[in-house]
Amino acid sequence: MQLSKQFLNQQQDQVYDALIVGGGPAGLSAGIYLQRYLLSTLIIDKGKARSFWMQELHNYLGLPPDTSGRELLNQGKDHYLTTGGDYLNAYVEEVIDEGETFAVRVRIGRKHPTYMIVRARYLIAASGIIDHLPVLENMQNVFDYAGHNLHVCLICDGYEMRDQRVGVFGSSESSLEVAFPLGWFTPYITLFTNGAFEVGADLRDRLQAKGYRIVEQPIKQFLGENHQMTGVELADGSAIELDAGLVSMGSKYHADYLKGIDLEYKGGNLVTDSMNRTSHPRIFAIGDLKVGMNQVIIAAADGALAATQIWRDIRRSEPPRNFQTNVHAA
Amino acid sequence: MQLSKQFLNQQQDQVYDALIVGGGPAGLSAGIYLQRYLLSTLIIDKGKARSFWMQELHNYLGLPPDTSGRELLNQGKDHYLTTGGDYLNAYVEEVIDEGETFAVRVRIGRKHPTYMIVRARYLIAASGIIDHLPVLENMQNVFDYAGHNLHVCLICDGYEMRDQRVGVFGSSESSLEVAFPLGWFTPYITLFTNGAFEVGADLRDRLQAKGYRIVEQPIKQFLGENHQMTGVELADGSAIELDAGLVSMGSKYHADYLKGIDLEYKGGNLVTDSMNRTSHPRIFAIGDLKVGMNQVIIAAADGALAATQIWRDIRRSEPPRNFQTNVHAA
Repeated sequence: MQLSKQFLNQQQDQVYDALIVGGGPAGLSAGIYLQRYLLSTLIIDKGKARSFWMQELHNYLGLPPDTSGRELLNQGKDHYLTTGGDYLNAYVEEVIDEGETFAVRVRIGRKHPTYMIVRARYLIAASGIIDHLPVLENMQNVFDYAGHNLHVCLICDGYEMRDQRVGVFGSSESSLEVAFPLGWFTPYITLFTNGAFEVGADLRDRLQAKGYRIVEQPIKQFLGENHQMTGVELADGSAIELDAGLVSMGSKYHADYLKGIDLEYKGGNLVTDSMNRTSHPRIFAIGDLKVGMNQVIIAAADGALAATQIWRDIRRSEPPRNFQTNVHAA
Repeated sequence: MQLSKQFLNQQQDQVYDALIVGGGPAGLSAGIYLQRYLLSTLIIDKGKARSFWMQELHNYLGLPPDTSGRELLNQGKDHYLTTGGDYLNAYVEEVIDEGETFAVRVRIGRKHPTYMIVRARYLIAASGIIDHLPVLENMQNVFDYAGHNLHVCLICDGYEMRDQRVGVFGSSESSLEVAFPLGWFTPYITLFTNGAFEVGADLRDRLQAKGYRIVEQPIKQFLGENHQMTGVELADGSAIELDAGLVSMGSKYHADYLKGIDLEYKGGNLVTDSMNRTSHPRIFAIGDLKVGMNQVIIAAADGALAATQIWRDIRRSEPPRNFQTNVHAA
């Protein structure tokens, strides 16, 4: 059920089988599987999953290609709630390993927050990432286009950018390397540094050999209307026409709550085994937070794998559950 | 596009980037991703994917839990066709590795088959498995319930069987071991050997210690109506009431066409790496045919992974594609 603040004063003694941090595709899928394994589950979601911003999921099997991320999340949350899982809108601040359980410190509410501790035997880190966006004077100008034709994922949206004039917005020299795989989809590429970093001679040569243009002065604003970016206005007042943009500025990893626990990372991503178990036997990582491809369909499968492994762990470690009914003669 | 026999006399020279054997969830997802990577793709499907039999997909994120396998497959096929992929209803008989390409021998039609050779650079084995079912005198009596409340997948349908009286239909001693994880969902388990094999003393003791019943005489027929099995009638005329059944008789692996190629297997499953590449660098295996869990959401993610790796391979091995248009000044 959807939990409210009232929850603070009830159920304090409950230990969930699994607590899932993040109600995106990975977390919701894990929750559905766990509940269907008759394991008690709490999803804690702070809102604004990365997929929430996706206007159209073009590559998710089973859904029409104009399905929005929001629709998927709403359907998934409804599905999860019908399985009897608990769902709390809150922010996970810290996780403490108590040996058999985790104590998870949760902040509920923004203006006048209240704090509580929830306990669970297993933890699933499904809190994902969020893309860094270009920092302009007027950030609303960025948000107007992000998730529409200002893309953040080449694998997701390369197809949408085929043969288009695409601006790549980078944050470092290495971030511009995305131009080369983007070149599979279109040759009309302009790279923007926004005046924030230098492009060395080697990379400059390689980009120019492909015919890509490099623009190194600051960006004044994005141009366009109705969420369709049509170009960029530069600091000197000149404008560059574009059909689409691709942001390549790295990501913020939502994993601060795991700081107190010794886990193996690769870059910002958690290293996991084939069932998505981290280097801690009772912590799983799924979706964009783990090493691997950041795709909704993969995140959803990740959830199924982690949930199944947790079920196996619990099933093998304890006697059969107490059956609720005894109406049938065995 | 949907290809017909006419295709035989056209396009004979085409070499597809990837040929996908099987139009189930894994193959369709791979096809959607490949087409969106601007790679030419042919799916060859013989019909009757395992998921075609599923009446309700209870655990696929994004779809209401009463969605049938058939609906998912229809949606996925439509989706794939809108990306421009080719689809052929046919049966793959043999695959010959020609070094740079595969020559794939295909049979079209059943009564008066015609044969053709199709070529592709990469092969994706997505042809899956099909469950063995109990062999009774009247097989229609089995088909009446299979996929309804005569289940074949504990992970998928354990939840549906919770607290129910479940009959397990095995084909060997080891196949009855499924009773123990099934015991997580219900204690009311009856095991049927259909008179086909012996149950040794050790397993018998372990099953009986759990209170499970073993029935060793042949089954005359399943009882029930409207696709809901209500029990089993035995050879001696006695009847046992059940709420559901679970078939545990192993599977047929649809991989005969790969016989001529040396590939690494584990049991009947193909061994793959994390991107679903087999031990052959240009053959990928996805879905139920590969080692791993047999779940629709995982099969769909498998397709995304294999397609992405094939795109990377091709992209890194060749010059950029020829761009179709030249309307934009770069």
